[in-house]
Amino acid sequence: MLEQIDVTKKMTKDVYDEKMESLIIKMGELQRKCKECGIPVILLFDGIDAAGKGFMINKTIQFLDPRGFKVYTTGKESEDEKMRPYMWRFFTKTPEKGRIHIFDQSWYKGAFDGKISEKAVNDFEKMLTDDGVLIIKLFLLISKKTQKKRLDNLLASEDTKWRVTKSDLKNNKDYDQVVSRYDEIIVHTDKSYSPWTIVEATDKNYASCKIASVLVERMEEAVKRAENGSKPVQSEGESVDDSFRNGILNGIDLSKTLTREEYRKKRKELQKRLGVLHNKMYLQRVPVVLAFEGWDAGGKGGAIKRLTQAMDPRGYEVVPIASPNDIERAHHYLWRFWEKFPKAGHMAIFDRTWYGRVLVERIEGFATEEEWKRAYNEINNMEEQLVESGCIVLKFWMHVDKDEQERRFRDRENTPEKQWKITDEDWRNRAKWDEYEKAVDEMVLRTSTTGAPWIIVEANSKYYARIKVLETVIEALEKRLK
Amino acid sequence: MLEQIDVTKKMTKDVYDEKMESLIIKMGELQRKCKECGIPVILLFDGIDAAGKGFMINKTIQFLDPRGFKVYTTGKESEDEKMRPYMWRFFTKTPEKGRIHIFDQSWYKGAFDGKISEKAVNDFEKMLTDDGVLIIKLFLLISKKTQKKRLDNLLASEDTKWRVTKSDLKNNKDYDQVVSRYDEIIVHTDKSYSPWTIVEATDKNYASCKIASVLVERMEEAVKRAENGSKPVQSEGESVDDSFRNGILNGIDLSKTLTREEYRKKRKELQKRLGVLHNKMYLQRVPVVLAFEGWDAGGKGGAIKRLTQAMDPRGYEVVPIASPNDIERAHHYLWRFWEKFPKAGHMAIFDRTWYGRVLVERIEGFATEEEWKRAYNEINNMEEQLVESGCIVLKFWMHVDKDEQERRFRDRENTPEKQWKITDEDWRNRAKWDEYEKAVDEMVLRTSTTGAPWIIVEANSKYYARIKVLETVIEALEKRLK
Repeated sequence: MLEQIDVTKKMTKDVYDEKMESLIIKMGELQRKCKECGIPVILLFDGIDAAGKGFMINKTIQFLDPRGFKVYTTGKESEDEKMRPYMWRFFTKTPEKGRIHIFDQSWYKGAFDGKISEKAVNDFEKMLTDDGVLIIKLFLLISKKTQKKRLDNLLASEDTKWRVTKSDLKNNKDYDQVVSRYDEIIVHTDKSYSPWTIVEATDKNYASCKIASVLVERMEEAVKRAENGSKPVQSEGESVDDSFRNGILNGIDLSKTLTREEYRKKRKELQKRLGVLHNKMYLQRVPVVLAFEGWDAGGKGGAIKRLTQAMDPRGYEVVPIASPNDIERAHHYLWRFWEKFPKAGHMAIFDRTWYGRVLVERIEGFATEEEWKRAYNEINNMEEQLVESGCIVLKFWMHVDKDEQERRFRDRENTPEKQWKITDEDWRNRAKWDEYEKAVDEMVLRTSTTGAPWIIVEANSKYYARIKVLETVIEALEKRLK
Repeated sequence: MLEQIDVTKKMTKDVYDEKMESLIIKMGELQRKCKECGIPVILLFDGIDAAGKGFMINKTIQFLDPRGFKVYTTGKESEDEKMRPYMWRFFTKTPEKGRIHIFDQSWYKGAFDGKISEKAVNDFEKMLTDDGVLIIKLFLLISKKTQKKRLDNLLASEDTKWRVTKSDLKNNKDYDQVVSRYDEIIVHTDKSYSPWTIVEATDKNYASCKIASVLVERMEEAVKRAENGSKPVQSEGESVDDSFRNGILNGIDLSKTLTREEYRKKRKELQKRLGVLHNKMYLQRVPVVLAFEGWDAGGKGGAIKRLTQAMDPRGYEVVPIASPNDIERAHHYLWRFWEKFPKAGHMAIFDRTWYGRVLVERIEGFATEEEWKRAYNEINNMEEQLVESGCIVLKFWMHVDKDEQERRFRDRENTPEKQWKITDEDWRNRAKWDEYEKAVDEMVLRTSTTGAPWIIVEANSKYYARIKVLETVIEALEKRLK
């Protein structure tokens, strides 16, 4: 496809000035409307070397209100980026509602370099557009000859020759392969929800005007959709089976227990092993994510404490998850978790997690049915990326029965220094036990994967539960680190 | 002082258990109370090598609710840190209201290494405690012999020997110098608002118990102060002269102007030079901060645009400053600006700035008199740190007279695509012109320093103003980059 495009299209200054006059006014208006409607906009400038991405970005942003956008450059990977899944650098930079984030090269550079699959790219864009993000993808193209000429010009001046890298020169030599590789990627990632625009970039007036037109067109569409209240993108709505009889939780044997002596002995020995493994994990740069969910008073805190006691605080972080703040609410709901993922060699222990979407948010109606049904898949994709980046991912459901929960609630009410742990909300949640049970069953069924399994922890006995958590973590670490 | 301390103090397990029982309960309570009162707590673990900082931190956090604290390790500088003023890494990590941030080594490591002056350290702590932060500073001390023994033990095992660095061994050899250097620093930074506690750290029970006691004592004090509504720390309240007759703004000649032809010619030539300088600035890794304040409709946006047109968007960022969000409000008011300071080689252009504290916040009463009076000094300290880290700092006041402002307001009201730029708030601010004028006069007088000067831009003529800004920036860059 790309090789058939006439990249030399031109536009005279007069035509350009005339066309741009109205486009500039419209762009300003549309930026304000996108802000009013709370539409986040992602604008990608990809393309081959020396196609003028930087120049075109600067030209474009002159027409925008600087209070509403930010430019990100995807250059050499930073230390922080190297130590996390590839998409971390982008997910954490997705715009909040009403803002425009402009990327000078994007995840498509990663796709080109083989660092991220086309499937993962499509999943990512689908997830964002489902959430109301407008993605505008521009690919700037020039001919081999023009590219050569521009590189030569840069090389000719002392001030600019540092901009030309060896890889630029090689890519010019291999122009045909480069373009055909991009061609393939573009074809595979040109989706109705996030289409590509190829920008013929030899003539700067032509390119600038085409970019402005595309921006106006896409923003107008998005604003119209938002104003009509129609959903941003038709979700394919994978059918979710509504009946989960004979659920998973019902099959759990909650009578398992341990005596205090057994517990103490085992705990001591396991914590010692965990301390050593935590050290090794750091040295071998393995990242670990432990996710804790469970019934209120199910013993999440106690289990987490028995893990952390054994470890060096410089190598782990406990991440408590409460309701999102206003910044977090203005992003995709997974954004705040990406922000907290550990670097290589570190452990992040989540006390409540992204599964809130399919538990409390589902039951309390904070997420629409369409949103929480979509979430299973989004979560699986996210965890898959973690696992593929080398991360160990374990998810614990701390399971007690209704009677045990009541005993613990009463105990909290009757013990002065525990009273803060029990609120009216806990009792309210308890009243919805059956709904939660159904949601948990469905969650476990839909999101337990080989790479990121759910572990149901029989937690009526605190001793038994803590030991099971310790043993599970140790086993997973030993398997990886041997 | 340090050498006179008996570091070998011991505590039996029985005494420890007994004492800790009530301390642990109190710590839990106090953490919750600090949260309720919105007190941010900073807890520093400093000390000599192998004194057991990591161990003691882990011990301490077991008594705290993990939802309320975070541990930061001050290790090797990251790329991001190297490219910013030394205190950036700490300022950006100060806790929000009600949270505890624990530092495994702090800015005192920087003071020891000569990277930050004792004065800057004292200024920093004063600023935070004035703002209600509780700072608890612990210095863990062991004898030379104990240190040697611990290092030898670490070296003896395959699993731990990587923890011992050459510098650890050298510091053990030079124990006396190391301790006497810390002694000096501690004496100079032991302030009533943020006192030091020396922890004799040979015996772990003793050390752990002492740390718990100090935490309880200091948190109790802080909660009591907060509940009594008394100010956290007695501010010395530098007397601020209230009369600024014959102010600075009155002396400004607003008749300066340029013709359209002169403007176009000059702008073109200056923008070209700026483009080249921006490149050089990047290559020579010079960071630049441009701060824009001015009357509403004073032409900030236009002046900024004439700068950015000339530059590569990958090397600058325009930072628009609106009212703070809820996270920002829960920190010291300077926190959000530190977050935005540029790395070496980059330019940050602030459209409105930290001077909001002594302008709108002063006039609208969002800051108390005591707070905005304190701000001059805090701002000067901050800018001094920027300048000392090699940053170019220029501050522009875009000055128009009252008539010109009215003309521009009316023009905005009468031009459809400019209407969004004018709100009722602009008119309300205008009604307070005299108050603002006084505040601006005082601001310029108190915060114009050689390193970070104010430039009053005569802006009745937009052409003149834009050229003056361009010329000023170019001059400053040329001076540095030659």
